[in-house]
Amino acid sequence: MNVEIISVGTEILLGDIVNSDAQTLSVELARIGLNVYFHTVVGDNPVRLEEALNIARNRADIIITTGGLGPTYDDLTKEIIAKTFGKELVFDEKAYDAIVSYFAKNKIKMVSNQRKQAMMPEGCTVFYNDWGTAPGCGFKSGNNHVLMLPGPPKECEPMFTHCGVPYLASLSEGVIHSVSLKMFGTGEAMVEEILQDKMLSYTNPTIAPYAKQLQCLVRVTAKAENLESAKELIAPVKDDIYSVLGEFIYAEDDKTLEEVAISQLIEKNITLAVAESCTGGLISKRITDISGVSQIYLGGVCSYSNSSKEKLLGVSHETLEKYGAVSEETAKEMAKGVCEALGSDIGVSTTGIAGPTGGTKEKPLGLVYVCVYYKGEYKVCKLEGYRNRENTRLKATYTAFDMIRKLIK
Amino acid sequence: MNVEIISVGTEILLGDIVNSDAQTLSVELARIGLNVYFHTVVGDNPVRLEEALNIARNRADIIITTGGLGPTYDDLTKEIIAKTFGKELVFDEKAYDAIVSYFAKNKIKMVSNQRKQAMMPEGCTVFYNDWGTAPGCGFKSGNNHVLMLPGPPKECEPMFTHCGVPYLASLSEGVIHSVSLKMFGTGEAMVEEILQDKMLSYTNPTIAPYAKQLQCLVRVTAKAENLESAKELIAPVKDDIYSVLGEFIYAEDDKTLEEVAISQLIEKNITLAVAESCTGGLISKRITDISGVSQIYLGGVCSYSNSSKEKLLGVSHETLEKYGAVSEETAKEMAKGVCEALGSDIGVSTTGIAGPTGGTKEKPLGLVYVCVYYKGEYKVCKLEGYRNRENTRLKATYTAFDMIRKLIK
Repeated sequence: MNVEIISVGTEILLGDIVNSDAQTLSVELARIGLNVYFHTVVGDNPVRLEEALNIARNRADIIITTGGLGPTYDDLTKEIIAKTFGKELVFDEKAYDAIVSYFAKNKIKMVSNQRKQAMMPEGCTVFYNDWGTAPGCGFKSGNNHVLMLPGPPKECEPMFTHCGVPYLASLSEGVIHSVSLKMFGTGEAMVEEILQDKMLSYTNPTIAPYAKQLQCLVRVTAKAENLESAKELIAPVKDDIYSVLGEFIYAEDDKTLEEVAISQLIEKNITLAVAESCTGGLISKRITDISGVSQIYLGGVCSYSNSSKEKLLGVSHETLEKYGAVSEETAKEMAKGVCEALGSDIGVSTTGIAGPTGGTKEKPLGLVYVCVYYKGEYKVCKLEGYRNRENTRLKATYTAFDMIRKLIK
Repeated sequence: MNVEIISVGTEILLGDIVNSDAQTLSVELARIGLNVYFHTVVGDNPVRLEEALNIARNRADIIITTGGLGPTYDDLTKEIIAKTFGKELVFDEKAYDAIVSYFAKNKIKMVSNQRKQAMMPEGCTVFYNDWGTAPGCGFKSGNNHVLMLPGPPKECEPMFTHCGVPYLASLSEGVIHSVSLKMFGTGEAMVEEILQDKMLSYTNPTIAPYAKQLQCLVRVTAKAENLESAKELIAPVKDDIYSVLGEFIYAEDDKTLEEVAISQLIEKNITLAVAESCTGGLISKRITDISGVSQIYLGGVCSYSNSSKEKLLGVSHETLEKYGAVSEETAKEMAKGVCEALGSDIGVSTTGIAGPTGGTKEKPLGLVYVCVYYKGEYKVCKLEGYRNRENTRLKATYTAFDMIRKLIK
């Protein structure tokens, strides 16, 4: 069965936002073995949306729309789909109750047009929205399956994973199961070179490397009659990949690098404090993205100025004078300093030149020192090479988490 | 005249990359007054590409393709376009020379199939590629104008700006100009309710509200003979919107809320320090996303534990005992404390319950106090209502920036 994704929204055609929903859905659809042949983007225009739907129904088995399910007058996806596929829209009590309680819970005043969001095509499977207000749905009409998902990525993605995928899974025979081996410290091209022979020799499961912002993952995907058999097919291939890339692999599932590092600390009850210069709060932000981290994360200092390095972290004036703020020596004093200031077991620090200005011949853009201080010992990692500010900050952040992971493993 | 963008590449349908070319081109096309009605993505498949082209030629005046111009066997855009529009491909000497010298300049060994890239539709305007190897082109066929651009964003974007836009400029009538009014503190549905009558009564310019993660923007778009007239049409409508929503509007352009707040501080040379509890570094991270902020941003403290609030910020033990960490009193002492610890003009603090655990009846999830301390005075904002952890942290962060903006304006 093949799929067409129709994204509805003038804001995409105006270039205000990129069509990330189509990308997210495409990744998931590939994972469950469905071929995507077309993406279409159409504006909030009833005539052109109907035209797009009529083209799609003749060339795709499954049509998935994103966007246009909101309460306002230009949200018209549901109305036009109902018209095109000859469905009545009926009031769904449960969907309406969910919207009402969503507004009550968030103490937002409800406006009258919210009722529109609870009108659903007759006989559909409603995808109740636990992540926002607009419900989605799926239904069959003739040879087509039609799924409607909300546009905001924070609603579209979880609704597809939790409601759309199970809905689609019931349509296909057998199962597709995949395991992702997530890596830090090596690039996609290198991984592909290392795995080249294996990629060609295996057909079920298949092996495919993907680059992700400064990280890399290798997905092993098997088709089988049931989940058990799929897992059996995957196990030896996974071992094979570990034998050549094991040192870089930090997780086999959805966990992020920071989640892996932090969960190790929580498990062993090792406390952490962070002193950030060039990362400016990014490490702390990522740590505190994780709920329940307060038992081991004592806090952090963003020492963006030299004076804050001295005042809050006790970095010596002489060190800053002699070696400069971006130096191994300063990184070490920062890590030890934050450790002592907050009384933590581990102290982590970053200091570097994030750019785009401030580079010199001796200390070029992209130079970063990351230091981990633990039980009286220092580990320092020196990063070099420059792409841009964001990349530099992110690389330093991942490096810090990877150093913690390896230290505590 | 209206435009359809057809992006050719299986990697987009697999979700390996997002279709950023379509976004880039859409922004530019809106700027020069051309309406984009459809984006289509199709894989490297001759039959489906021809199908997409035949649909587009009947509904679009201008077809712009991206991708599929490279030297390999699955790069087939030019061949299928030539076939669909009945054009011969002819060898372009100048294009070939450009490719040869590109390879020489970059010291890359040339492979024989590079010659394929220099085959161009007869009578076309060649867009020589100064940013890579594959040339693009534009031609007219019947009622359609067809433009071909390479897929890599680093080639697509400059080629469109330098070759595509001048090619199209000669074809279009008038201009479209729009102004975006960016708001914080009100939702899309509320804005729409307030603007409903105006949205219906104005036809040129048009008014359209858009929701953006916890923010909102209203776009006023005018069509006119030239930019000057478009601006004249927009001015009174903008004033009209300011009269009812002015208090929420923080920018009229691409600036983010934090950029607006921080640029005000830079302009007046007012220094800032931040003490974060529930936002955990997010405010500091967003401040230091901005390059050159070090002249006014002295640093921050992520006081995630009570002990760090006492040790680094001097919050009194009694206050924490009596009112708790999440209280107006603690927020005030944190803001003043970080101000004094770092010697800044302004101190900002956040303390709250980001969830998903830790809420009580008296202090429910989502309760956050944001405090700004400046010249001996405190401003405190109490946030309520809960959606999720990320939302709570982001709302507190935006609130902090909005409070700084309003304080310094």
